[in-house]
Amino acid sequence: MLTGKNYVGYELSAENTSVFESINPATEEKNEKFHIATHQEVNQAVKKAQISFLEYSAKTVEERAGFLEAIGHEILELGDELIITYCRETGLPEARAKGEMGRTIGQLNAFASYIKNENWKNSFEDKADPKRIPMPKPALLLTSIPIGPIAVFGASNFPLAFSTAGGDTASALAAGCPVVVKGHPSHPATGELVASAIIQAAKQTGMPDGVFSHLNSNNIEVGTFLVKHPKIKGVGFTGSLKAGRALYDLAAKREEPIPVFAEMGSVNPVIVSAAAMEKRGKEIAQQLAGSFNLGAGQFCTSPGIIFTVENDKLADFEKELVSANSQIDEQCMLNQGIKQAFIKVKNDFISNSNITVLSEAGDKDGNMVAGIIVKINAKNFFENNRLQEEVFGPFTMLVTCDNLEELNKAVESLQGQLTASLIAEEEEFSDLKKTVQLIQHKAGRIIFNSMPTGVEVSPAMTHGGPYPASTDSRFTSVGISAINRWLRPISFQDFPEALLP
Amino acid sequence: MLTGKNYVGYELSAENTSVFESINPATEEKNEKFHIATHQEVNQAVKKAQISFLEYSAKTVEERAGFLEAIGHEILELGDELIITYCRETGLPEARAKGEMGRTIGQLNAFASYIKNENWKNSFEDKADPKRIPMPKPALLLTSIPIGPIAVFGASNFPLAFSTAGGDTASALAAGCPVVVKGHPSHPATGELVASAIIQAAKQTGMPDGVFSHLNSNNIEVGTFLVKHPKIKGVGFTGSLKAGRALYDLAAKREEPIPVFAEMGSVNPVIVSAAAMEKRGKEIAQQLAGSFNLGAGQFCTSPGIIFTVENDKLADFEKELVSANSQIDEQCMLNQGIKQAFIKVKNDFISNSNITVLSEAGDKDGNMVAGIIVKINAKNFFENNRLQEEVFGPFTMLVTCDNLEELNKAVESLQGQLTASLIAEEEEFSDLKKTVQLIQHKAGRIIFNSMPTGVEVSPAMTHGGPYPASTDSRFTSVGISAINRWLRPISFQDFPEALLP
Repeated sequence: MLTGKNYVGYELSAENTSVFESINPATEEKNEKFHIATHQEVNQAVKKAQISFLEYSAKTVEERAGFLEAIGHEILELGDELIITYCRETGLPEARAKGEMGRTIGQLNAFASYIKNENWKNSFEDKADPKRIPMPKPALLLTSIPIGPIAVFGASNFPLAFSTAGGDTASALAAGCPVVVKGHPSHPATGELVASAIIQAAKQTGMPDGVFSHLNSNNIEVGTFLVKHPKIKGVGFTGSLKAGRALYDLAAKREEPIPVFAEMGSVNPVIVSAAAMEKRGKEIAQQLAGSFNLGAGQFCTSPGIIFTVENDKLADFEKELVSANSQIDEQCMLNQGIKQAFIKVKNDFISNSNITVLSEAGDKDGNMVAGIIVKINAKNFFENNRLQEEVFGPFTMLVTCDNLEELNKAVESLQGQLTASLIAEEEEFSDLKKTVQLIQHKAGRIIFNSMPTGVEVSPAMTHGGPYPASTDSRFTSVGISAINRWLRPISFQDFPEALLP
Repeated sequence: MLTGKNYVGYELSAENTSVFESINPATEEKNEKFHIATHQEVNQAVKKAQISFLEYSAKTVEERAGFLEAIGHEILELGDELIITYCRETGLPEARAKGEMGRTIGQLNAFASYIKNENWKNSFEDKADPKRIPMPKPALLLTSIPIGPIAVFGASNFPLAFSTAGGDTASALAAGCPVVVKGHPSHPATGELVASAIIQAAKQTGMPDGVFSHLNSNNIEVGTFLVKHPKIKGVGFTGSLKAGRALYDLAAKREEPIPVFAEMGSVNPVIVSAAAMEKRGKEIAQQLAGSFNLGAGQFCTSPGIIFTVENDKLADFEKELVSANSQIDEQCMLNQGIKQAFIKVKNDFISNSNITVLSEAGDKDGNMVAGIIVKINAKNFFENNRLQEEVFGPFTMLVTCDNLEELNKAVESLQGQLTASLIAEEEEFSDLKKTVQLIQHKAGRIIFNSMPTGVEVSPAMTHGGPYPASTDSRFTSVGISAINRWLRPISFQDFPEALLP
């Protein structure tokens, strides 16, 4: 079933003789070869997207919903082939693959059911008043319109839920925007299988050729060319700060700048109060060890910094954190590049003379890693902004503050975050009011007494936050509101019903 | 009452010996001198804004609404002094000054009344389900939070409604964001008077020092330095494409990029159908002449292009347009620079050999101008993209198309617009469906059978559009929804009521 080709609309295309292959991170064996998309294929995919836009955006919401549901159905039909391919390309366990497949289908169905009720268009009618003095008042109908063809970049860490048919694609298709996906080179076969499901669903439900394309590449050129294409009107991305910022910069320099929704991760600080540590330090340490090691630390919301205030139980808490970490099995990282980057950044941290290493045995054979825990005091933390950079992998840093005042200063010094968590007891609430007031301006989601990993797909979810967590904190990339990224308001003034599109 | 100084929070400040003065465009006499803000004054204003942000954003909505209403009251108290100053600095008639004062106060009161009902926060609660399998479902409360200190640039063409206490300032203050205004150098005295009203209102209603500052400058340095300041979190601007794009580029290059809402105007195409021309050509010509000459053509929504399809009545329509234009009195432009730019661009158009000049006597004494009308056929229009650039002033261009197909091609070739208008008859609706479908993707507001000038302040208004009409088509700068530019979503997970900010 795999061809190694690109989908340029309905057409399988392989103009390029240049190919690349992904590597099984668990076995280091090579997988299938994939043809890198040419500029001509990118142009053709965007041209088809542009042409299909008028027809696709004019489909009824029931038709678009039917398309989304059909995609979910076709993905489900891929069955074991998809799960086996996913695991072979990512080193992630089967349970994770199945969970992510369910979530991906769930997202598609959620958008399908959401758009069937046209409330999402936020339409609002302001009636005319021809007799108003001094000027008659016109009738205005406010509604929403899709912005045009969207480029979506597959994410390394969510080969299904944030890739080919993931949240960016599902929300853009739901909004009425054609999508051109630039697949992630670490899982091109997973990408092609899902792309074939989307194409199949599009044909079945009578969607125009060009509503979806899928391009392969293991270099930055294809993505760069895609984002610079004048007919692309928006970009969805999940990945590193470096790559997300590069896409943002490209888009901002275009003759017509376009919005880039890059979710670039963060260190997701967790504040553990003195009373919480005293009452349930062991339990919290276990939760933290589980959270920062989850998926080999390769989640956007992995807790990379733990703030504590000096107290009698801190030494015990450290021991429990180290102990809980040591009981977690080593895990395989997504690819060799990620493993190498992790070891390099970890070594940079460890070589900092102000840092104490609590658990260090992180570098295992091949692409395997184990959790690393380091410690620093707040004064030294303040001195070096680079200590706030995300370490992508199972890594966390305990930052010890002398008192609540210093903790608040540390919170004020933080960059933008996806999440911030507060682990505390009720008797501390009045003391912590100021901390909450400060931290709300630093993150998109503020959590009480639980871990940041696990992003609920909910209409009340914000997955995004002040820069550098994301490039546009006013939108979420998870949950139904993600559709708003691909819509703009439009007003029809004095428009006769018969002429409304 | 005028001091020529900057308001750095509550403090009047004039560190700089460099001063500038505005010029009365009607008499060419010099007005008062104003001190250009220094970098230190900019820094101090932003520092005060940043410090006041926590306190100001935590004020109750009633307190913030009281502040906005007090600003309106203080502006009203300025009375004749404000009207006389406005006219002296802009050359605009007294009726316009009074109308704009009313609109400005109306906007402040509209935001005040809007925020009193907390629906604007779009809060939504997704309840917990601790028994959910396989994972308990957390409680999520989604709400809105202000993004931080905002820089607002005064506009040349709306010294009150889009300047010191205009829509950008009112919406940002309503959202809970402190504001630093960089006043427009053409009307610094009007700016200072309004700034004094805001400061007075802030003191009266117990707002923190720093919630508002007002800086003078006649160069680009102060604005540049302000937009680059790391503590500024958003920018509001109304003006030219060149200046708006420059601010956008500055903001995009920051270490932390910030949103820029620049409303940069457009040519606001008006399509006049053959049947409409036949039935009521004279009336339409009169409306068009009035609309493109309104305020000396210095409105964002001035109709700069009129598309027509060849028909028997076209020659009559041209004559009627020229005749209606000739009956409009010459008008004073806002300043010498705008007049000179108008004459230069007009001369560029006229020197194009494909253009026929229908009314040319536009260049009058001093800063006075009269309406200019030119004509080109669609084929020649397609050849030169620069003909789509806005001519700021009383200028319009008739573009004649051979048939509806060519008209649709012309619509497809358009850049983004604030508005697009369709003047047509009911019997043409089925033929015009395609035209409407195409044009909806080109503008923020689509108008049937009336002129684009006159922007209703309504919750159903979209004032903004695809680039280059504005830098972010997903938001409006007029109407209540303008508040959304300064808010971002935030989710509180499992948060106890007592700890919510």
